[in-house]
Amino acid sequence: MTIAVLGGAGYIGSHTVAQLVKAGEDVVVLDNLITGHERAIDKKARFYQGDIRDYHFLSQVFSTEKIDAIIHFAAFSIVPESMQDPLKYFDNNTGGMITLLEAMKQFGIDKIVFSSTAATYGEPKQIPIKESDPQVPTNPYGESKLAMEKIIKWADVAYGIHFVALRYFNVAGAMPDGSIGEDHHPETHLIPIILQAAAGTRDNLQIFGDDYPTKDGTNVRDYVHVVDLADAHILALNYLRAGNASDAFNIGSATGFSNLEILNAARKVTGQAIPAKIGPRRPGDPSTLIAASDKARSVLGWKPQFDDVEKIIGDAWNWHENHPEGFGDRQ
Amino acid sequence: MTIAVLGGAGYIGSHTVAQLVKAGEDVVVLDNLITGHERAIDKKARFYQGDIRDYHFLSQVFSTEKIDAIIHFAAFSIVPESMQDPLKYFDNNTGGMITLLEAMKQFGIDKIVFSSTAATYGEPKQIPIKESDPQVPTNPYGESKLAMEKIIKWADVAYGIHFVALRYFNVAGAMPDGSIGEDHHPETHLIPIILQAAAGTRDNLQIFGDDYPTKDGTNVRDYVHVVDLADAHILALNYLRAGNASDAFNIGSATGFSNLEILNAARKVTGQAIPAKIGPRRPGDPSTLIAASDKARSVLGWKPQFDDVEKIIGDAWNWHENHPEGFGDRQ
Repeated sequence: MTIAVLGGAGYIGSHTVAQLVKAGEDVVVLDNLITGHERAIDKKARFYQGDIRDYHFLSQVFSTEKIDAIIHFAAFSIVPESMQDPLKYFDNNTGGMITLLEAMKQFGIDKIVFSSTAATYGEPKQIPIKESDPQVPTNPYGESKLAMEKIIKWADVAYGIHFVALRYFNVAGAMPDGSIGEDHHPETHLIPIILQAAAGTRDNLQIFGDDYPTKDGTNVRDYVHVVDLADAHILALNYLRAGNASDAFNIGSATGFSNLEILNAARKVTGQAIPAKIGPRRPGDPSTLIAASDKARSVLGWKPQFDDVEKIIGDAWNWHENHPEGFGDRQ
Repeated sequence: MTIAVLGGAGYIGSHTVAQLVKAGEDVVVLDNLITGHERAIDKKARFYQGDIRDYHFLSQVFSTEKIDAIIHFAAFSIVPESMQDPLKYFDNNTGGMITLLEAMKQFGIDKIVFSSTAATYGEPKQIPIKESDPQVPTNPYGESKLAMEKIIKWADVAYGIHFVALRYFNVAGAMPDGSIGEDHHPETHLIPIILQAAAGTRDNLQIFGDDYPTKDGTNVRDYVHVVDLADAHILALNYLRAGNASDAFNIGSATGFSNLEILNAARKVTGQAIPAKIGPRRPGDPSTLIAASDKARSVLGWKPQFDDVEKIIGDAWNWHENHPEGFGDRQ
């Protein structure tokens, strides 16, 4: 039986594929390569290029391969872009899920682990954020993912398609052996932006606001190493294989680091000065986001190995320093 | 400038087309005729057969006609069916809205009035239900419509597509001149089912539960005449043409009738005994649904003309008695 990883050429997807292969799983990757990189896909996985919104494509792959379960990463995830062009997000993320579920139903595939997000909570009512807290997204990206959660719940009731939704907080780092890492274009995440500035491939670095009600005035976020996040997907897969009920889990470290703390940790790890400017607040940025991840720890047995922000930044730096052009496939 | 009515061959759509034509509007109808009837479309409207999920079809119509605004009824709306096959609802209702908004954006069409539903509220927290009450759907039909409301709000923010969402409660009646009426297959609504029993085209009639905490133990619902509902769409259209901001409005009579009261009113109107059985409760039926419609009355200036349940049933009976086979186009 085979695991299909949708969006397996992307950042989190490619790390999950590598961890699945290490765990002895038979893996196929489906990716349209709009934001993914073919070179990021583990050589032991079979690759099919195509779009999850294309029912005919899904149908061909699911006819060829005997799929036991799906891990679904194939989504757009840039918040400011979602504000500018929400339909791009609803079409690919929400619409893609509808097409995918239709194909799963037709081919009798009844297990799926998929990427949800902290952005489904919007402005948190309490810190740390629990899975049962209200979900009131403040941007279309979060809204498109919340709609995916709602739709799949009804698909579970009607067709018995079991799911685990993993609500990610901030993800960073790279494979510790340096084989794969993060390569987004444009890059919008703090740690790779800081490391691009450290590597000299980016001119200016800006921190958005230093007047938030936090320890040093900058935003506080919860960081998880990409390999720990990848492993959470494998645990979720095994949870479903053991016949457990559909559920949603936060994946976070339960610890918050401010933007300035991350910057200082990066200065220490890289040995570079990394000049940065403080700019104005960016609309829609909550002050603090920290996950309560007790549920993932107790129910899935998730235990992050790399629970150290300098290790996370160190692995990311190892990748960026050795791959200033990322996977080198940019058009 | 032309009004495009999507789903204009359906029950509420065809009545709205007729009222628009009477008001001197130039109207085109788009309908896939899956549940609609070509014979229900006013002869003065131009008809294009096709599906709103087909971007190419929308693009052809919007290239041919100069569309000022859209009134969008093209959705599936049978609650029990949505429980059995939720993806049918998410694909057509939610997915259809995504495709439609993409086409509106491309063709610069910036006004839309669309059908939402009381089912977006789920089990009400208070009676009468206000527009600001929590929206927690208890079935996929309501969920698919709530997702439409959420998506269009972000389309308003990003692209300036202005909308009015009309949240319907129960709709019944027919055009008073007998020209058009309700013809669903299968029929799932109380008043037409009662009248089919009265006309002898249906054998058994069942009331689902008589142990609810209502005046006589049967469910209480809020009924609006289909012509009053059609007129609410025209008022909403004019509200948007006047440059007002996007908003959602309940459309209901603010009065509740129990299932037994409706049955007795139908016995009086038709002069038939109409035998009925009391069956068990049906899962997911709220006890009482009554709309607060003050907002539609004060903001849109909506004033129902046919605020009398015997008039509503009388017009429906006039249609059913004279058209026992509906539009006579059933395959």
